[in-house]
Amino acid sequence: MYRHTLSDRVQFADTDMAGIVHFSNFFRYMERVEHDFFRALGMSIWDKSNEIPVEERVGWPRVHISCDFKAPLVFEEEFTMELLVEEIRAKTIRYVIRFWKNNGELCAEGKLVAASVRRDPVTGKMKAVNIPERIRDRITVAPAELLALPQIG
Amino acid sequence: MYRHTLSDRVQFADTDMAGIVHFSNFFRYMERVEHDFFRALGMSIWDKSNEIPVEERVGWPRVHISCDFKAPLVFEEEFTMELLVEEIRAKTIRYVIRFWKNNGELCAEGKLVAASVRRDPVTGKMKAVNIPERIRDRITVAPAELLALPQIG
Amino acid sequence: MYRHTLSDRVQFADTDMAGIVHFSNFFRYMERVEHDFFRALGMSIWDKSNEIPVEERVGWPRVHISCDFKAPLVFEEEFTMELLVEEIRAKTIRYVIRFWKNNGELCAEGKLVAASVRRDPVTGKMKAVNIPERIRDRITVAPAELLALPQIG
Amino acid sequence: MYRHTLSDRVQFADTDMAGIVHFSNFFRYMERVEHDFFRALGMSIWDKSNEIPVEERVGWPRVHISCDFKAPLVFEEEFTMELLVEEIRAKTIRYVIRFWKNNGELCAEGKLVAASVRRDPVTGKMKAVNIPERIRDRITVAPAELLALPQIG
Repeated sequence: MYRHTLSDRVQFADTDMAGIVHFSNFFRYMERVEHDFFRALGMSIWDKSNEIPVEERVGWPRVHISCDFKAPLVFEEEFTMELLVEEIRAKTIRYVIRFWKNNGELCAEGKLVAASVRRDPVTGKMKAVNIPERIRDRITVAPAELLALPQIG
Repeated sequence: MYRHTLSDRVQFADTDMAGIVHFSNFFRYMERVEHDFFRALGMSIWDKSNEIPVEERVGWPRVHISCDFKAPLVFEEEFTMELLVEEIRAKTIRYVIRFWKNNGELCAEGKLVAASVRRDPVTGKMKAVNIPERIRDRITVAPAELLALPQIG
Repeated sequence: MYRHTLSDRVQFADTDMAGIVHFSNFFRYMERVEHDFFRALGMSIWDKSNEIPVEERVGWPRVHISCDFKAPLVFEEEFTMELLVEEIRAKTIRYVIRFWKNNGELCAEGKLVAASVRRDPVTGKMKAVNIPERIRDRITVAPAELLALPQIG
Repeated sequence: MYRHTLSDRVQFADTDMAGIVHFSNFFRYMERVEHDFFRALGMSIWDKSNEIPVEERVGWPRVHISCDFKAPLVFEEEFTMELLVEEIRAKTIRYVIRFWKNNGELCAEGKLVAASVRRDPVTGKMKAVNIPERIRDRITVAPAELLALPQIG
C-alpha cells in the first residue's frame, strides 16, 4: 500500500487568535494520518501486540519534518489528508502528506521522514535499525505521477 | 511549604479564535506551577533520582480538577499563578491555584486533587498509596486566611 | 434534545510520558462533544451564518469546568463521550459529560458550565446575555434518571 | 539584530508516551523564540499598539517550516533556543532555530519562513506585502560563519 486518506474536521482548540488552525497542529494532523495508515495496514505504530516479540518491536521517531502552507483551515472546516509513500530506505520511510479542502484546493503539503528505531539492550539508547520485514512487506513507494503534483501552481 | 508562585507569559499557540487563552491551557498552566512547587521543594513530580529506590517512587495522577473562570488572558499578557496547599490526606493533596493579572485582578481559580500512586508489582495496576514521608514532611496546609479569598465577590 | 454522544480514538499526541492521555486533553475532548452537540442541533457554537444578524450572535465561554478521573485512556483506545444537559438557566447551560470505555467502564465524568455572551457595542466587553430563543428552543434538560449515575460506586 | 536566544524547560504536557517531547512541540517552541525576538526588538509579532495605524499592521503567517531532529528532549530538561536570521526578502524572513542541550549538544535544527501579510481592505483576504520599514530597520542577516554549523556532522 502506498496511499492512505483520512478526513477530519477542525476543532476549536486547534485554532489561534488569527482565527485559523495554528500551524503546529498541521504536524499533529500529519501524525494522525500516518498512524491511521498503519492501522489500515493491520498494524499499530506502537507495537504492543503480544504476537510481536519485544526484541522485534520498533518505534518511529521523526528525523525530519517540513510543511509548506498554501491556504489556512478554519474552525469546523472539513479537510482530507492524503498520505503518499515517497521513499523507503533500509531504516527510514519518507511520506508526503497533502491537506485538501473540500473544494479541491490544496492547503498544505508536508514531508515526514520517520526512522525505524529500537532500544539497544546494552546501552539503553535508541538506534536506527532495518525496517522489519513484516512492515516493509506491506508498504510500497507511490507512483511518480501521484507524487508529482500538477495542482500546485 | 504551603505556597508557591510562578509568573508566565501567554504564548500565541495558547490562544484560540476568540482571541483569548483557550480554557484547556489553564489546566496546563496549573500543572506547570504544581511541578515548579515540587522543584522548589528540592524534588521532582517524576521521581527519577537514583537516590530514591524504584519501590519508593510515586506518581501523581489527578483524581479531580476544576476551574472557575473570571476574566480572560490574552496574547503576551503576563500573569502570576499562586498555588496554595488546601488539604493533605493520607493519599491525596488538594491545591488551590489562582491566576492573577498584573493589575491584581483574579482571572481564574482552580482546584486540583492529586493522588499518590504506585504500580502494584503483582497486578501491574496503579494504586493509591500513602504519601511518602520524604514528601509529606516538606508540605503543610496553608493558613485559612490565605485560603479564604476576600477578593472574590 | 438533551443527550448527544460522540466516539473518538486517542491520538499519540494526546498521551504523556506516563503512557496515558494527559488530563488536559479530557477538557479538549469535552469541548469536542459540546460543539458536535450544537452541530447535531443544526447550529454552530460559533455563529457565522449570515442568517443570524451580528447583534443576535452569542459566544459560549466557560465559567466553570471540572472533571473527576476514574480510569486512564491509552493510545489508540476508542471511547465514547456522552453529553447530557443538566441545567438550563437564563444565561448559562450546564452539561455533564461522561467518558465511557468500550467495555462499559466509566473513565471520567466532567461538568461544564458555559455562559451565553455578547460583546457590548458600547464598552467592547463581553457580557452575559439571555440565551437566544433559537438555541433555547432546541435544548431541554435530561431526565433525572439519566443524570443519576448508578454505575459510579 | 540577527540573533536571539531563549532558554526554557520541558513541561510534562509537552511529553508523549515515548517519554520525550512530542515533535509537534518543537514547532511551538520555535514560535516562542521568534516572538521573544520581536519583543527583544521592542515590537510585538501581533501589532496592537495604538502607535501603529491599522493599515500599517502586518501579521506573520508561516509559509514554510521544517525541523531536523538529532536528539530528544526529556521532562524537566533545560534547553536553549538560538534564533538566527538567515535571509530577508522583500516580503519574507527566514530564520534558523537551533535547540541546544545544556551540555552543548544540538538537539534539533529548524527553519521557519514567515511572510509579512496584511488583510486586503477590498477582498478581505490576506496578502503578502513588503516588510514595513520599522521592522526591516531592526533586523539584519546573521554572518555566514554563525549560520554555518560545524557541530553538525
